[in-house]
Amino acid sequence: MSLHGTYDPQNIFALIIRGEAPCYKLYEDDDVLAFLDVFPQSYGHTLVIPKKAAARNILEIDGDSLSKVMAVVQRLTRVLVDELQPAGVQVAQFNGAPAGQTVFHIHMHIVPRFEGEKLSVHAGVKADPAKLEQLQARLLARMAG
Amino acid sequence: MSLHGTYDPQNIFALIIRGEAPCYKLYEDDDVLAFLDVFPQSYGHTLVIPKKAAARNILEIDGDSLSKVMAVVQRLTRVLVDELQPAGVQVAQFNGAPAGQTVFHIHMHIVPRFEGEKLSVHAGVKADPAKLEQLQARLLARMAG
Repeated sequence: MSLHGTYDPQNIFALIIRGEAPCYKLYEDDDVLAFLDVFPQSYGHTLVIPKKAAARNILEIDGDSLSKVMAVVQRLTRVLVDELQPAGVQVAQFNGAPAGQTVFHIHMHIVPRFEGEKLSVHAGVKADPAKLEQLQARLLARMAG
Repeated sequence: MSLHGTYDPQNIFALIIRGEAPCYKLYEDDDVLAFLDVFPQSYGHTLVIPKKAAARNILEIDGDSLSKVMAVVQRLTRVLVDELQPAGVQVAQFNGAPAGQTVFHIHMHIVPRFEGEKLSVHAGVKADPAKLEQLQARLLARMAG
């Protein structure tokens, strides 16, 4: 899958946006959806996506959607830092398979980094659903609090 | 250097913004500056920074500056893709030393990825100034064209 191509409306994030696939949702408004990565590279790995933009990557997204996505990235990074107290946080966005992109609907990764812990391989091991639910509840409580 | 602390007005990017240190500039307006990374992880590695925000990381930057930075990230990613034809592009932003941050003024990395080429180590080897100048000229010509 190259940088140039056609948006596939059946990609997993499109299904999640349409409510046809589940997710561990952390935040949603008219324009933006955020949820836990089920193949996390670290504890708290979160994805933020535009809902209206049928964009595969940063080349294709409209500027307004990108701004709205980034505002939610910032908000959720603050929530993750407050709740999980990581040593650092990586924000990343991959364009094209050779850059590590695995789902071709633009998404921002928020990856908390903990002292002495290496990252898991991207899209490597699926997380325990019970642990994701527990983490989701913890972050939702922090946002409500 | 943790996620919480004080902005150091003598960091290298602050010096570049004030014109007290040089850079291979690609773009500048009142709010945003973009230039080539002198320790590139790949050919075309570009940095985009806010000029007015004395922010160390994504926790501290104001939303307006973040939006303006991202608009330039998008614009320059398109330029890099058009001119260098990479197989992919990684956009990344590191918060805190354990996440890979080495300069404590918020910056977005744009890292083109080429088929079969691994990334150089972040902040590893300084690039040849003549090659950076040549690359700068090439990208400026693309933007002007």
